[in-house]
Amino acid sequence: MTTIQVTTAAKSYAVTIEAGLLARVGTALAQVWTPCQVAVITDTNVGPLYAQQVRDRLIAAGFRVTVLTVPAGESSKSWPQVMRLIDALSAAHLTRSDGVLALGGGVVGDLAGFVAAIYLRGIAFAQVPTSLLAQVDSSVGGKTAIDLPTGKNLVGSFYQPDVVLIDPHTLTTLPPRMLVEGYGEIVKCAALVGGDFWALVQQVTQPAAILAQAAPLIHQSIAFKARVVMADEKEGGQRQLLNFGHTLGHAVELWGHGRYMHGEAVAIGLVQVARLFAAQGMMPAALADQLRDRLTAVGLPVALPADLTVTALLAAMQHDKKIHGQALTWVYLTAIGQPAMHAVPLTDLATWIAPVTGPLQP
Amino acid sequence: MTTIQVTTAAKSYAVTIEAGLLARVGTALAQVWTPCQVAVITDTNVGPLYAQQVRDRLIAAGFRVTVLTVPAGESSKSWPQVMRLIDALSAAHLTRSDGVLALGGGVVGDLAGFVAAIYLRGIAFAQVPTSLLAQVDSSVGGKTAIDLPTGKNLVGSFYQPDVVLIDPHTLTTLPPRMLVEGYGEIVKCAALVGGDFWALVQQVTQPAAILAQAAPLIHQSIAFKARVVMADEKEGGQRQLLNFGHTLGHAVELWGHGRYMHGEAVAIGLVQVARLFAAQGMMPAALADQLRDRLTAVGLPVALPADLTVTALLAAMQHDKKIHGQALTWVYLTAIGQPAMHAVPLTDLATWIAPVTGPLQP
Repeated sequence: MTTIQVTTAAKSYAVTIEAGLLARVGTALAQVWTPCQVAVITDTNVGPLYAQQVRDRLIAAGFRVTVLTVPAGESSKSWPQVMRLIDALSAAHLTRSDGVLALGGGVVGDLAGFVAAIYLRGIAFAQVPTSLLAQVDSSVGGKTAIDLPTGKNLVGSFYQPDVVLIDPHTLTTLPPRMLVEGYGEIVKCAALVGGDFWALVQQVTQPAAILAQAAPLIHQSIAFKARVVMADEKEGGQRQLLNFGHTLGHAVELWGHGRYMHGEAVAIGLVQVARLFAAQGMMPAALADQLRDRLTAVGLPVALPADLTVTALLAAMQHDKKIHGQALTWVYLTAIGQPAMHAVPLTDLATWIAPVTGPLQP
Repeated sequence: MTTIQVTTAAKSYAVTIEAGLLARVGTALAQVWTPCQVAVITDTNVGPLYAQQVRDRLIAAGFRVTVLTVPAGESSKSWPQVMRLIDALSAAHLTRSDGVLALGGGVVGDLAGFVAAIYLRGIAFAQVPTSLLAQVDSSVGGKTAIDLPTGKNLVGSFYQPDVVLIDPHTLTTLPPRMLVEGYGEIVKCAALVGGDFWALVQQVTQPAAILAQAAPLIHQSIAFKARVVMADEKEGGQRQLLNFGHTLGHAVELWGHGRYMHGEAVAIGLVQVARLFAAQGMMPAALADQLRDRLTAVGLPVALPADLTVTALLAAMQHDKKIHGQALTWVYLTAIGQPAMHAVPLTDLATWIAPVTGPLQP
């Protein structure tokens, strides 16, 4: 078992990583919450695998439990699901002394966190992430959100959990594609950190290695993210570094309407942004190749889709939350472990991305 | 001009009270915001009176302005209005560098504040309250919310504004009934504070005196609320004192479906809770009479409606946010200026309120 403490202005909480942790989720939660009513929010993929076990363990520890299940997939990060869950919390008479537990991947965590943040102006919240992406990224840091038709995560709040309980055993039931997409975010973190973390991902030369090295990969990713979040909870400065690869990545993901998983789109974004900055002479060209090699080793995509048009890509970037005033801030690397930021005026965007979008249709 | 500084963990902001402040709203806002796009959210009552003036003054000060109008009335604190406003902010391409300005009463402030809190996980927010209730109460303290069918303010967030600009001149265009209902909250504050503040409300012996004494009444109310909010931003302790009169008041308001305005329901709640605690021997009976005299002097109601049943009242109290675990916390006074709190188990509630609900149908 390893524990990482995350301390923000809003609260201080522990992230515990332990193989088999789900079997003692009740006692683990009882260390931070007094017995109360818990709404376990899960989805149609994860619920059948783990909801019964979590429910039984919570009841054994003295909690009252209501399980609420949403359809699996990004489309559940929506107003209708928020309203349905809020109504369910109200119908179950949850009070400010009760809590919401997210049991699932990033979609469940983002949605359940937002619901916990706004029900009665905020009730207690715990994260039990079961996908690699959620374990290394979205469960830590307090970002909650739903999507709008115009873009991902455009509605939400910063709302920290009281505890994050990570059981790497849950990765064994994850479909291979989801395991691999989570690894895309790990490569991003390792490239930003460098050192031992980058050395660790260099040893991942095939998908099976992700599972074999899951615990140290998760630990390194969260330790990094915790440092960044502690320095900048609300994304005013340093936290923007976590957007490395996300500017193009989010746009490709939005455009694809489900064709690419988040980590897959980020993989494309990482390599393409490296090529962009290499074309500007601001980043060594070899870095783009290093990133490509790490990502393709596990089968992640790195090329912009051939049927994506420049017009569609630019349209998808218009609602990026990273736009401040009339400029879009990009994250790049001067070397592995050496991130930097560069703002591009929106009026220059088409020209700016031309080095990688050149082969695409207008 | 008087200014009260409110400092919470989240931010520090000024509340400025100045007759005629609306005429210089642009320069006042420019002292806290750099030029950006401002979405002015107002309603069908206030918009026609003041939106054009505010828009012109903001543009003169260098802001770009979009005016968004919702139907006047509590029914706008709803999911459909939240979604419509969020879509409008997205369509206008508001970014994290832009802001929302609430121009109106409590409904507009609560709704606009919630929208500002969740759009892009929170953008800048300013309050320009135009009703007495909003000026003395809801514009300060950071509570934002919408209603559910099961109760008022059951969804929302704690989200502090960057500035609150109060122009008592706007009260001259307020319908008399709305001026009087705002005074209900002032009596609540004065009873909690005592001293000079209570002496001031004792001079209000007719509705016209509210307007004549508006500036000092607003100042005293906000100064008190600011002290409470600074001590307890998230309503964990002292802030609960502000719920004096609200436990029965909220229930009567919810039951009435618009028959009573908020301040009217609070007036009923203040006198009835005083009678309840007097019946328990926990509060001098004379205090209930003193509260009744101050409220009836301006025409506020103080009696429970004759057609309210005990069953309906208890049902309306079931979704009170002040329920923690299985108990409901009530605020009472041991003397003017001496508040206290008392928790009643939900199972005892029917018996507890019997002294005042006795005359009602079951």
